[in-house]
Amino acid sequence: MRRFIVVGHEAVTSDDFRLDDLAGSTGRLDILLRCVNSAFMLSHGVRTDTELFLCLQGPPARPRVVRLVGSELRHLNPDERSTAALIRKALALRMQGRSTPGIYLEMRGLKGLLEEYGRDLVYLREDGEDLRAAVLPDDPAFLLSDHRDLTPEEETAVLDLQPRIVSVGPRSLHADHCIVLVNNELDRV
Amino acid sequence: MRRFIVVGHEAVTSDDFRLDDLAGSTGRLDILLRCVNSAFMLSHGVRTDTELFLCLQGPPARPRVVRLVGSELRHLNPDERSTAALIRKALALRMQGRSTPGIYLEMRGLKGLLEEYGRDLVYLREDGEDLRAAVLPDDPAFLLSDHRDLTPEEETAVLDLQPRIVSVGPRSLHADHCIVLVNNELDRV
Repeated sequence: MRRFIVVGHEAVTSDDFRLDDLAGSTGRLDILLRCVNSAFMLSHGVRTDTELFLCLQGPPARPRVVRLVGSELRHLNPDERSTAALIRKALALRMQGRSTPGIYLEMRGLKGLLEEYGRDLVYLREDGEDLRAAVLPDDPAFLLSDHRDLTPEEETAVLDLQPRIVSVGPRSLHADHCIVLVNNELDRV
Repeated sequence: MRRFIVVGHEAVTSDDFRLDDLAGSTGRLDILLRCVNSAFMLSHGVRTDTELFLCLQGPPARPRVVRLVGSELRHLNPDERSTAALIRKALALRMQGRSTPGIYLEMRGLKGLLEEYGRDLVYLREDGEDLRAAVLPDDPAFLLSDHRDLTPEEETAVLDLQPRIVSVGPRSLHADHCIVLVNNELDRV
């Protein structure tokens, strides 16, 4: 199993947003939508060995996690708008549960995810060891951030877990591109 | 200079489409929009050493190419909708010319592109040589297709040029993911 955790520092935690303004009024949820595509999309199907945790830190509500489970997903299309509709449906639940096949709302934040997956954590950071040379855990959980770096508090919590720190290459890339590169690397093992 | 040519077999050749139905009524223009993101987007800026040719084969009009030039691009954002608005503006020109900085409409199709860039062509195909082992031209032009393979006629025209045939890895991926992987490989040279 490969897992990706993406921190959306200002990503909306309610379903009160418009599908035609995804890059504007959602706290950059659009970045996380592209991560959904990168994590799961194959030419003909979906990666069933993958889980993705979108860590939405709000406002307006407290942090929530939308969890996507590749082996259960249905109705996932590659475009941002239809993925946004699925995420919005999850946020509309307002309590823990499944919204559509393979998509779950969880009432926790990054701290809860680090407690569960911290042992196999791989922190993607520009100054890390080259992904191609890195020795990865068997069930890695890759941690990425949106357009903002982790806060000092988040970074401390992550580093306390002594994660592997890994870089995808010489250029600084968006989270969704990093996920494509990680998936390719794992495909080659 | 690195170039990408993406064939959109049914991609719309007029500006008569709606930004809230990009994956529906545009002949899968959404795939090409994601290729724009993959070709150009860095964390902080745009790849200035890159050109992208979107080969739109229609309907309703005859084939057109929308050419994006990284060194001239302004106003490019990573989301599909705003990129679609830029492409639509180019298609609205209806004759050869520049619509916005770095974006040009050209009244030609794949044949014209192959004539110009055929010498340095790298054809991305699942059964190709591994990208990581391939010897690439100095100014490569990578040819990719949308959700459909090249037609037999297109394939013949391409193979007549004796291109390098290259694969990005063991899984079959969407064109935008392939571009991310190619860019990373070239970044590492």
